[in-house]
Amino acid sequence: MIIVLKPDATKQQLDHVLDRIKALGLKPMVSKGTERTIIGVIGPEDALRVQPLEVIPGVEKVMPVLKPYKLVSRDFKPESTVVNLGDGISVGGKALVMMAGPCSVENRQMLFETARAVKRAGAQVLRGGAFKPRTSPYSFQGLRDEGLKLLREAAKETGMRVVTELLDTRDLKMVQQHADIIQIGARNMQNFELLKEVGQLHKPVLLKRGLSATITEFLLAAEYILSQGNFNVILCERGIRTFETQTRFTLDLAAIPVIKKFSHLPIIVDPSHSTGEWEYVEPMAKAAIAAGADGLIIEVHPNPEVALCDGPQSLLPKKFVKLITEIRKVAKAVGRTV
Amino acid sequence: MIIVLKPDATKQQLDHVLDRIKALGLKPMVSKGTERTIIGVIGPEDALRVQPLEVIPGVEKVMPVLKPYKLVSRDFKPESTVVNLGDGISVGGKALVMMAGPCSVENRQMLFETARAVKRAGAQVLRGGAFKPRTSPYSFQGLRDEGLKLLREAAKETGMRVVTELLDTRDLKMVQQHADIIQIGARNMQNFELLKEVGQLHKPVLLKRGLSATITEFLLAAEYILSQGNFNVILCERGIRTFETQTRFTLDLAAIPVIKKFSHLPIIVDPSHSTGEWEYVEPMAKAAIAAGADGLIIEVHPNPEVALCDGPQSLLPKKFVKLITEIRKVAKAVGRTV
Amino acid sequence: MIIVLKPDATKQQLDHVLDRIKALGLKPMVSKGTERTIIGVIGPEDALRVQPLEVIPGVEKVMPVLKPYKLVSRDFKPESTVVNLGDGISVGGKALVMMAGPCSVENRQMLFETARAVKRAGAQVLRGGAFKPRTSPYSFQGLRDEGLKLLREAAKETGMRVVTELLDTRDLKMVQQHADIIQIGARNMQNFELLKEVGQLHKPVLLKRGLSATITEFLLAAEYILSQGNFNVILCERGIRTFETQTRFTLDLAAIPVIKKFSHLPIIVDPSHSTGEWEYVEPMAKAAIAAGADGLIIEVHPNPEVALCDGPQSLLPKKFVKLITEIRKVAKAVGRTV
Amino acid sequence: MIIVLKPDATKQQLDHVLDRIKALGLKPMVSKGTERTIIGVIGPEDALRVQPLEVIPGVEKVMPVLKPYKLVSRDFKPESTVVNLGDGISVGGKALVMMAGPCSVENRQMLFETARAVKRAGAQVLRGGAFKPRTSPYSFQGLRDEGLKLLREAAKETGMRVVTELLDTRDLKMVQQHADIIQIGARNMQNFELLKEVGQLHKPVLLKRGLSATITEFLLAAEYILSQGNFNVILCERGIRTFETQTRFTLDLAAIPVIKKFSHLPIIVDPSHSTGEWEYVEPMAKAAIAAGADGLIIEVHPNPEVALCDGPQSLLPKKFVKLITEIRKVAKAVGRTV
Repeated sequence: MIIVLKPDATKQQLDHVLDRIKALGLKPMVSKGTERTIIGVIGPEDALRVQPLEVIPGVEKVMPVLKPYKLVSRDFKPESTVVNLGDGISVGGKALVMMAGPCSVENRQMLFETARAVKRAGAQVLRGGAFKPRTSPYSFQGLRDEGLKLLREAAKETGMRVVTELLDTRDLKMVQQHADIIQIGARNMQNFELLKEVGQLHKPVLLKRGLSATITEFLLAAEYILSQGNFNVILCERGIRTFETQTRFTLDLAAIPVIKKFSHLPIIVDPSHSTGEWEYVEPMAKAAIAAGADGLIIEVHPNPEVALCDGPQSLLPKKFVKLITEIRKVAKAVGRTV
Repeated sequence: MIIVLKPDATKQQLDHVLDRIKALGLKPMVSKGTERTIIGVIGPEDALRVQPLEVIPGVEKVMPVLKPYKLVSRDFKPESTVVNLGDGISVGGKALVMMAGPCSVENRQMLFETARAVKRAGAQVLRGGAFKPRTSPYSFQGLRDEGLKLLREAAKETGMRVVTELLDTRDLKMVQQHADIIQIGARNMQNFELLKEVGQLHKPVLLKRGLSATITEFLLAAEYILSQGNFNVILCERGIRTFETQTRFTLDLAAIPVIKKFSHLPIIVDPSHSTGEWEYVEPMAKAAIAAGADGLIIEVHPNPEVALCDGPQSLLPKKFVKLITEIRKVAKAVGRTV
Repeated sequence: MIIVLKPDATKQQLDHVLDRIKALGLKPMVSKGTERTIIGVIGPEDALRVQPLEVIPGVEKVMPVLKPYKLVSRDFKPESTVVNLGDGISVGGKALVMMAGPCSVENRQMLFETARAVKRAGAQVLRGGAFKPRTSPYSFQGLRDEGLKLLREAAKETGMRVVTELLDTRDLKMVQQHADIIQIGARNMQNFELLKEVGQLHKPVLLKRGLSATITEFLLAAEYILSQGNFNVILCERGIRTFETQTRFTLDLAAIPVIKKFSHLPIIVDPSHSTGEWEYVEPMAKAAIAAGADGLIIEVHPNPEVALCDGPQSLLPKKFVKLITEIRKVAKAVGRTV
Repeated sequence: MIIVLKPDATKQQLDHVLDRIKALGLKPMVSKGTERTIIGVIGPEDALRVQPLEVIPGVEKVMPVLKPYKLVSRDFKPESTVVNLGDGISVGGKALVMMAGPCSVENRQMLFETARAVKRAGAQVLRGGAFKPRTSPYSFQGLRDEGLKLLREAAKETGMRVVTELLDTRDLKMVQQHADIIQIGARNMQNFELLKEVGQLHKPVLLKRGLSATITEFLLAAEYILSQGNFNVILCERGIRTFETQTRFTLDLAAIPVIKKFSHLPIIVDPSHSTGEWEYVEPMAKAAIAAGADGLIIEVHPNPEVALCDGPQSLLPKKFVKLITEIRKVAKAVGRTV
C-alpha cells in the first residue's frame, strides 16, 4: 500500500497516519520528495485495505500495490485450472467445450429435438433455462422444476451434461439435483448470498460476467466461490454494457487474455447473448476461440420464430452444425481441438 | 408495433408476417413506400412484443410504439404517487424526505450516536445496513439479525423510520419485521425473485437503480413490484457506471425529470454512493433537489476514519447538519420544504 | 512515481530499472516487502512519465503520484480564475454568466429576434453557430462568415458579447475577428492543433468537454491552451456518452465539484445539448447552478419547429424567461447572483 | 418515417402535423389504434429527417425507418469495396493487409530498422506518425515534415506503402505528398472539415473509429468522405471507451460483422491502441481476423523501452514475426490469405 500525503500535510497528520499503520502491526516507510511525502507500507496489505485511510486529514490518495483477489490469481496457483465435468469432458484443457441448447425449456418436444441436434453436431453440454430472469414481468418466466426434470431427461437420453441457471437460494436444492453445472447469470454476478451457497458445493459453477462488472469485480465474484472451498469455477464473458446499440452488449474479448494472465480459471464465451442477433454469433464464436477462450455457450432453437425467449439470437440446428465445422478450423489454427 | 420489411422481401414473406399477426387476433395495416414496406399493427402491442418477429425472413426491424411498462407509467396513473411512511412522513409530496445513517450497523454505540445526530439535524428515516453486499469476500459482511434489531431500537428511541437492505429471499421475514422501508440495492435491481417477494407486501420499497440499468429497465424492475400488488415504491438514483473514475459512479440527475415525465413514482437520490467521496456529497445533494428529487439518502458516520464500510464517502454529523441547512435553502428555491 | 516489480523479478532486472532512473537524474528508493519490491522515485516525475517503464522486464506496474497537468491545477494557482469578458461581465466570480441563443445562425431575422429576447431575459452572451459540426453530411452546415457577421451585428445592437465555435485552424482569423469568446466544441476537445492556436490568443476560450473525455483529459486539453500562454479558459460540461439513451448524453454534474477541487478554472454547463430535449433543460439548469456551476449556455429559438438544427432541445423565448426566473432563486440559495 | 402521437393529441394537432408533411411534398398515412395514432410517411425520408417534428405539440416520438447514411451502405452498393493501394496490394479482397511500424517516427535509424523488419515479416504497409495527437502538451509531438520524408524514404527502400495521420487541414498538402494512405485518427473522426478535404482526394483514406462513436456515427463520418467523391475508404476499429480499465479501450470486434452487414467498405483492426499492452496484441489480432477483419495495423518498435510514444503496446520485431506466423494459420482457417 502506498499512501500519498497532500502537499500541505502537517507533521502531526503524518504522525497520525504512521500511528494508524503501526497499530495494525505493519511497518511504514516514509519517502519525502520535493513535491509530496509518500508512505510505503511493508507487510500484508489486507489489514490496511479495509481501512478508509483516504479520510484521514492530510492524505491525498491511497494506492494499493497488490490485487484485491487471492485464490483466483495466478500468483496463488500458477498452473491453469481444468474443471472436470465427468464422462471425460473438461474445461480448460486443450479440448474446447461446447455448450448449446435453447434459451429456455419450453416443452419436452422442442427440448429433446434441440438436444439431439446439438449433440449430433458435437456439443457436450446441454444448456437451457428453467428459471428465467426476464427484464419484463410480463415475459415468460420459465417452467421451473418441470423444466429442470426435462433437462435431466434430455441430457440422459443424449449423453450430455446439463448447465442451468440458479436464480434464488431457495431453489438451490432442486437445481443442484438436476444440474451438472450451476450457472450464476450476469444479473446475479454480485448476488453474494448465491455465490456463497454455490461456493459450498463441489459442483462446477459457470459464473457469467455482470453487465457492468470490471474484470477485477468479476474475479472478486469468483473469489467468493473459491473462498468457500469450491475451486470448480468456469468464467464466462457475455458482453458488457456500453453506448453501442447495434449489438445487445459489447463482447469484451480482450477479457480473455487479461483473465488468462491474472487468473488460473478457465473462461468460455457466450456469443448469443452478447450480440443478440444470430447473424453475428458465428463470427464472434470464431473470434472468441482465436482469442483463447476455452469453449462456447450458444443458443440453438429448432424454430426461433416461435421461441418464448431470445428467438432473434438463436441459431437453427443446421446453422449450429455449420458453426461447429468453422470453429473446428479456427480451433486447429490456435492449437486446440473440438 | 411497426414492422419494417427488407427492400427485397417477397410477397410470400409479407403474407407470412401478416398471417402471424392475424393469428394473434391483431389487425395489420400495410403501407408500401418507395423504399420499404411497413406494417403497422393495431391492437394491444403486448401479444406481439413477446414474439421474435425479427427472425421471420424478410423482416428488417421491429419498432415498438408503446413503452414496455404499464402500472408504473403516467399513462396509467397521471397523478404523482405519494408513499406514506406513517407518523406523518411521506415521500413524493411537497415535503422532502431525508434518510441518513451509517453505511453498515457496526455496533450499538456508533449507531445510536449517529441516529441521534441525524434526527436532530432533521432526518426522518434512519438508514443502515445489516446485510452488506460487498465486492470482496474479505470485507465486513454485516451484523445480520443483530444489526436489524439495533436499527429498530435506535429508530424507536429517536422516533425515526428504518430503511434497510434485503439481499436474499430467505431473510425476508426477518427484515420485514424490523424495517419500515425495505431497500432493494443496486446490485439486486434485477433480482427478480426478490422483486416478486417484496411485491407481495404492503410495506414501502426503496428500489435503487442498477449500476448499468437504463431508465426503462429501472421502471420495468419497479413494474415487477407493482404487478404483484405493491404500489408503495420509492425509486432511488444512485449513479451509473461510466468511463469516468474521479467519482465512483456518474450520478445521472437527468433521470429525475425523465422519470417524473414517464412515471408517477417518487424518486430520491443517493449522493454518497454515487460520488464515493464526502466532499462531493453536499453539491450533489443540492443539485438533486434542484433537479426535482423527492428526497435524499445520505451516509453519516461519527468517525469515518474507522468505518467498516464506505468511510471515504461518509459525512461527519456536523457536516450533515450543514448539508441540511443548505438543502433547506435550495428546497425553498424550488418550492419544496424540508 | 512508484514502480512495483513482479514477484519473480531478478536482481538484474531491479538493477536495470534503477540504472534507468538514475540516468534521468532522479533518485530511486527501494522498499523490499514480503510480497513485492517497490521503487519510489524522488524528484520531478515528468522526466519519468514519458518513459515506458512498464515494458522493462520485471516491472509489474507503474503508478504516478502526481496529476499529469500543472498550469490548470489548484496546486499551481490556488485562487479561482475569473475570466473577464469586458463590459463588466466575467465568469467565475459571484455573478453567474448566462449565454443563450440559437444552435445555428439561420438568418438575420431569427437571430435578431432571439438576441433581443435573451438579452431582455437577462443573458449577457449571445451564442450561435456559424460553422456547424454535423454528424450527417446532409445536415445544414452553417452560414460561415455570413453567420459570423450577423452574430457580431446582433450582439452590437443588443449590447451582448458573442461566443461562437471555431472548427478549423484555417478559419481562426475570421472567427477571432467577430467573436468575443471562441468556443472549442466537444468533438474538437482533442483537436490539439486547434488548442495550440487558441492558446496563442488573449481572447477567452470556451472549452467543451469531449463526449468521452475523462475529467483528467478535459483538464489536459485546457492545459494545452494555458501552456501556450492563454489563461482565459472557461470549461463547459455538456454531457458524456453512456449507455443511457433517454437523454442524448449523460450530464455529469459531479464534474463541477471535482473540477473546482483540482483546478482554478471556471466551469459552466450546457443543459441543452446534454439532454437533447427542451423539457429537461430547466431542471438540469437549476441542478447545475445548485452544484456550483459558474453559468449556463442554453439554446433558444423563436420557432423550434422549423429550426435547422437542434430544434427539439431549444427553448422558446418565453420559456427561457421562466428559466432565468427560476435560476435566480436557486442562485440566491447557493449564494450566487444572476 | 413513423410519427407517433401522444394519447391526448387533438384533431388540430394531428392536422398540423399532416400539413407539415404535405408541405414537404410527402404523403402521410394515418392509422388510428386503440392506444395511439400513428402517421406513416411515404416518400423520401431525408426531407423529413432534418425537421424537428418532435417539438410539434401532440407528437410523442418520431422513428426513422431508413438508415441515415446512403453511399456507404450495402443497399446502395451491394458488392464489397476493394481499395487498391497499388503494387498489387489491396484491402477488402481475399488477401489480408498488414500495416506495421512505430507509433511515431523518432529518427532515421529506428524507422529504417523497423521498416526492414516488418517488411521481412510480411507487412505491406509502413505505419508511423509524423504528427502526433498527444493527450498531454508535454508529450513528444512528432517530427512533422521531417518525419514524413523519412517515412517516404523508408517505404521506398523497403518497397512498402505508407500510411500516416493527418491532423490539420493546413498540413494536407504535405501529408498528401508523402503518404499513400491518409489516416484520420480516432480523435478526428468527427473533424468534419478534415473529412471534407480528404473526400476531395483520390487517395485511400484510413478512417479510425472515434473513442465514443457508435457504428452509425462511424459510417456517417465515412459518408462525409464518400459524399465528396472519394470512395477509397478503409475503416478501422480501434476500441471504444467503456468502464473497463484493464485494457486502454474495449475492442469492439462485433463491429466487424455489423459493418460488413450494413456497409460495403473494408474494415481493419488496430489491436495495439485498443489494448494498450503488447501481451494482448497477438490474441486480439487473431480474434480480429477470425471475426472477418480485412487486415491489421500494428505497432512495432525495435526497443519499446525507449520509445517516445506507446512503448507499452509496441511489439518487438521478433514478436511481430511470430504474430504474422500465427495470423497466417487463422487466416487460412477463415478462408483468407496473408
